[in-house]
Amino acid sequence: MNNYQTPLRDIDFTLFELLDYASHCRAIGHASLDRELTGAFFGEAARFAEDVLAPLGPVGDQQGCKLVDGKVITPEGFKEAYEHYCDAGWPTLSRSVAYGGQGLPQSLGVILSEILGTPNWAWGMYAGLSQGAMHTIETHGTEQQKQQYLPALISGRWTGTMCLTEAQAGSDLGLLRTRADPQADGSYQISGTKIFISSGDHDLAENIVHIVLARLPNAPVGTKGISLFVVPKVLINEDGSLAATNGVSCSSLESKMGIHGNATCVLQFDGAKGWLLGEVNKGLNHMFTFMNLARIGSGLQGLAHAELGYQKSRLYAQERLQMRSLTGVKNASGPADPIIVHPDIRRMLLTQKSLVEGIRMLSYYTTIKMDASQHAISAGERQQATDLLSLLTPIVKAFSTEAGFESANLALQCLGGHGYIRDWGLEQNLRDCRIATLYEGTTGIQSLDLLGRKVLGSGGKTLAPLLDEITYLCRSCNGNELLAAHAAQLTRLSQEWQQLSMNIARQAQHNPDEIGAAAVDYLMYSGYLVLAFLWLRAQQTALQQLARPVTDSGFYRAKLAAAEFYFARILPRTMSLVKAMESGADNLMNLSSADF
Amino acid sequence: MNNYQTPLRDIDFTLFELLDYASHCRAIGHASLDRELTGAFFGEAARFAEDVLAPLGPVGDQQGCKLVDGKVITPEGFKEAYEHYCDAGWPTLSRSVAYGGQGLPQSLGVILSEILGTPNWAWGMYAGLSQGAMHTIETHGTEQQKQQYLPALISGRWTGTMCLTEAQAGSDLGLLRTRADPQADGSYQISGTKIFISSGDHDLAENIVHIVLARLPNAPVGTKGISLFVVPKVLINEDGSLAATNGVSCSSLESKMGIHGNATCVLQFDGAKGWLLGEVNKGLNHMFTFMNLARIGSGLQGLAHAELGYQKSRLYAQERLQMRSLTGVKNASGPADPIIVHPDIRRMLLTQKSLVEGIRMLSYYTTIKMDASQHAISAGERQQATDLLSLLTPIVKAFSTEAGFESANLALQCLGGHGYIRDWGLEQNLRDCRIATLYEGTTGIQSLDLLGRKVLGSGGKTLAPLLDEITYLCRSCNGNELLAAHAAQLTRLSQEWQQLSMNIARQAQHNPDEIGAAAVDYLMYSGYLVLAFLWLRAQQTALQQLARPVTDSGFYRAKLAAAEFYFARILPRTMSLVKAMESGADNLMNLSSADF
Repeated sequence: MNNYQTPLRDIDFTLFELLDYASHCRAIGHASLDRELTGAFFGEAARFAEDVLAPLGPVGDQQGCKLVDGKVITPEGFKEAYEHYCDAGWPTLSRSVAYGGQGLPQSLGVILSEILGTPNWAWGMYAGLSQGAMHTIETHGTEQQKQQYLPALISGRWTGTMCLTEAQAGSDLGLLRTRADPQADGSYQISGTKIFISSGDHDLAENIVHIVLARLPNAPVGTKGISLFVVPKVLINEDGSLAATNGVSCSSLESKMGIHGNATCVLQFDGAKGWLLGEVNKGLNHMFTFMNLARIGSGLQGLAHAELGYQKSRLYAQERLQMRSLTGVKNASGPADPIIVHPDIRRMLLTQKSLVEGIRMLSYYTTIKMDASQHAISAGERQQATDLLSLLTPIVKAFSTEAGFESANLALQCLGGHGYIRDWGLEQNLRDCRIATLYEGTTGIQSLDLLGRKVLGSGGKTLAPLLDEITYLCRSCNGNELLAAHAAQLTRLSQEWQQLSMNIARQAQHNPDEIGAAAVDYLMYSGYLVLAFLWLRAQQTALQQLARPVTDSGFYRAKLAAAEFYFARILPRTMSLVKAMESGADNLMNLSSADF
Repeated sequence: MNNYQTPLRDIDFTLFELLDYASHCRAIGHASLDRELTGAFFGEAARFAEDVLAPLGPVGDQQGCKLVDGKVITPEGFKEAYEHYCDAGWPTLSRSVAYGGQGLPQSLGVILSEILGTPNWAWGMYAGLSQGAMHTIETHGTEQQKQQYLPALISGRWTGTMCLTEAQAGSDLGLLRTRADPQADGSYQISGTKIFISSGDHDLAENIVHIVLARLPNAPVGTKGISLFVVPKVLINEDGSLAATNGVSCSSLESKMGIHGNATCVLQFDGAKGWLLGEVNKGLNHMFTFMNLARIGSGLQGLAHAELGYQKSRLYAQERLQMRSLTGVKNASGPADPIIVHPDIRRMLLTQKSLVEGIRMLSYYTTIKMDASQHAISAGERQQATDLLSLLTPIVKAFSTEAGFESANLALQCLGGHGYIRDWGLEQNLRDCRIATLYEGTTGIQSLDLLGRKVLGSGGKTLAPLLDEITYLCRSCNGNELLAAHAAQLTRLSQEWQQLSMNIARQAQHNPDEIGAAAVDYLMYSGYLVLAFLWLRAQQTALQQLARPVTDSGFYRAKLAAAEFYFARILPRTMSLVKAMESGADNLMNLSSADF
């Protein structure tokens, strides 16, 4: 049942029509990245995604990874696909020119990872984590480390991982115990057990560069005693050739609900040779360089599964014949009407459409801010983009993965009993999707980051740039009745958002648990609000396009319908969230733990 | 990780303290069924569930069923467990005394199926579908058919199935094509292919009695041309002994997301010998005898997975140490506090608790109405119970399975990454749970049944008995401040419910799609409303108990906390649902099918 098609039209719309990516690229010094060139590039990636990666999706699920004589074997075809990926030069896209990269904007790499990851997220994770490791070395490595690791990583000959979690240290990295003992030669002996290491071992590349959190002897307890190390699977000679294997091994593979094609490893570090990356005891700060990028990447996973599910369920709804429309036969020549005539099927499809395309807008909007935070010309613009990026990152991660799961779940529901059967791919899609609200910081952790650190930690200041953009957009909607009604709704919400933030801040002064009690509802509220902002922009853009002679007016009519649906049927969810937040912490905290 | 405990305390509370089951049993002629006797009976079932069925849950998931040389092999231990079940006399519980049953109330059988199904739903389905088949034969069979099939079915020596679905006929049974050709001896030759047949073949019993929907030659098209047949896997001699195998075979097993321990079969009927059950062309009506029971049973599946998930996640939250409470260290002797100190973990646990125990109240309340609809002394009481049962059945099925899935999903979330790993059982629980909103009529189908047939079809009259009970309860809350606030909330909602029903009825006169456009939101709204009614009763009951000297005051305090939480944080979801309903059908129907 592989008929996956990369949503190139929507990618193009979101980037160029909605977000004016061409101007953005010019502003950050990449004037050559126009609509035509990026379109050709995405088109090439799309063919690979559709022809090679999509058929390997179910193969990866059914075969999974195997640990044979201490070596991890990936599913059939994964290695060949990875070779193709490297030959095409894709790993080099957003990486430093000095070490063999193409130096193109990070945003382009993020969208590439969406295109490749959507039909086969498990495969995409090998490439994705490697990007995170490179980014960390680019940012925190010494010149020698960069020269030693980056060229092979950037070419794709080697891959990278991030080794954080231990059995007793998940969300609470302060509890981690892996030891780093200094050696006379300036290296460290790394000893400990890491779990849940995605892409932790495999047969795609000749070496794997692990980025590892560990403690020096006598380091302070908690998060302030953690340092970051680079630990290659195979040691490297001075000339860059491979030497002996290091003391890192995969002792087992986790049996998981989904993403079977990706090896989730328990890694043993038995006095493995490692080198400090960045400063002693600053490991957790350094790690956030990677984590912030990874959080955007995990948000994309919500988008990926939502897109895949929407495509499959839409096609099914257009073809599956069951019952007649209540308003009269629509398919007289057939034994029944296609189920897309039924209002509830449309409700499920439009929920998916408004979430999928909404998350796509959110992701691209955020990734463009990521570029701007580094490469905008003025310091003021860089700072503003940094603030906005900092606010949006936990929303992208948590909202997109929660909404993505809802969307993938509705996709399965559209197929009735057939959704539960392996053949259609909807059940794999839901299983694969389920990890996304958990790793790289759960929804709860993201929500504390958003509300506690970003919003309350700044005294509400980080809300300002987004509120400014919302005000600006709403003003521009005056004069159009359709837009003005939604603009009024959005304006009310943005005022409510500020009020809510202030109320929680006030309550938290008396009881810090008020933050945790409101956090997830606050994050979801914020996500719905940002999507409303983006859907209003999309509606405005679609109306502008339809005022001209366009060939694909159906595409824009569908945008208008999705915007209308979103404001009418999704955005009111904020009402329930507000009530829940306003109810305060007492209804959570009063019951004693033992009485649960 | 098997530490499942049957929630006997909550079963006892719900039945005897909340719903006065003892009086109910006296009123329907079962005065002997007092609290002590049922408690002993449930206790015995609980031991079997905990000791035998719970450990077989993961075994069933990992081994699945196998089709070997045309025979279906169930997972190791399933057959022995089934023998124990029969030896204990459990299949006989609610069945006709005339054919070997114990003639006890249906409600007792429903709760038994909850107790046995919770730790291992896949196993429970073998027994559960059999009960449905017996119920159908009891209701529609001739005396001869009853004598022929019921004793062996009731003893458990044989099991039964329900064969409805075909590849082209899922929700739309009118499209089914299986043929029934009359034979000279009064029997029929049944030919066709049925899919998705749960427990369709297996090695637990020596014979399987299939209840099959098929069409006579020249039967009217659509649902009015469907008849019901009984088709044994092995033919039966006049003396009741087994003869030759019939022309029914399992041609393949479906690969599914979960419930791997249950054989979901494609069944080929190749001119199999069958006998008409009930009247010609009344098959679909007859089938609803079974379906209504099966829908209550599927609702229980939502309860089962929600209970299992809640138990596991609660235990994890009480033991897992990560981070410190924001209001000060709670576990000074440990490296961190148990995660149950964190507000968001409590939010997830209390959501589960209020849904699990809420669904349990809803299920028992409904199953008691089921008893009363058949056995209440006065015709008026029987009619009132029948009306209420008819209203509640689609709510029990759809709301309980949707809420059950949400609950099971939050359970997984509480464990962070560990929730995604097989060992903890939470991911199996979620996979197993996912079927429940699909089979026995999807959530969409149930919602049309509720809103279109039950509510609008009766001109709103079926709402009356429940509204009366709500009014009565709310009046009894006067004088207690805690209860009165919730009673006021509930009263407002019950008025809104009537108003909504009338509004939709009015709109549907102009556009029948308004029913489908509102149906699922209406059903969920109704579910939240009924749960509010039951949580208010539970709160009242708990307050009454706490006013006396009780030994387990913690149990009642937890009831109060869950009620408080439910009204503060769950019930406000109705606000968003109302907004969505009020937005009408246009935002669903205006987009052309091709533009999606």
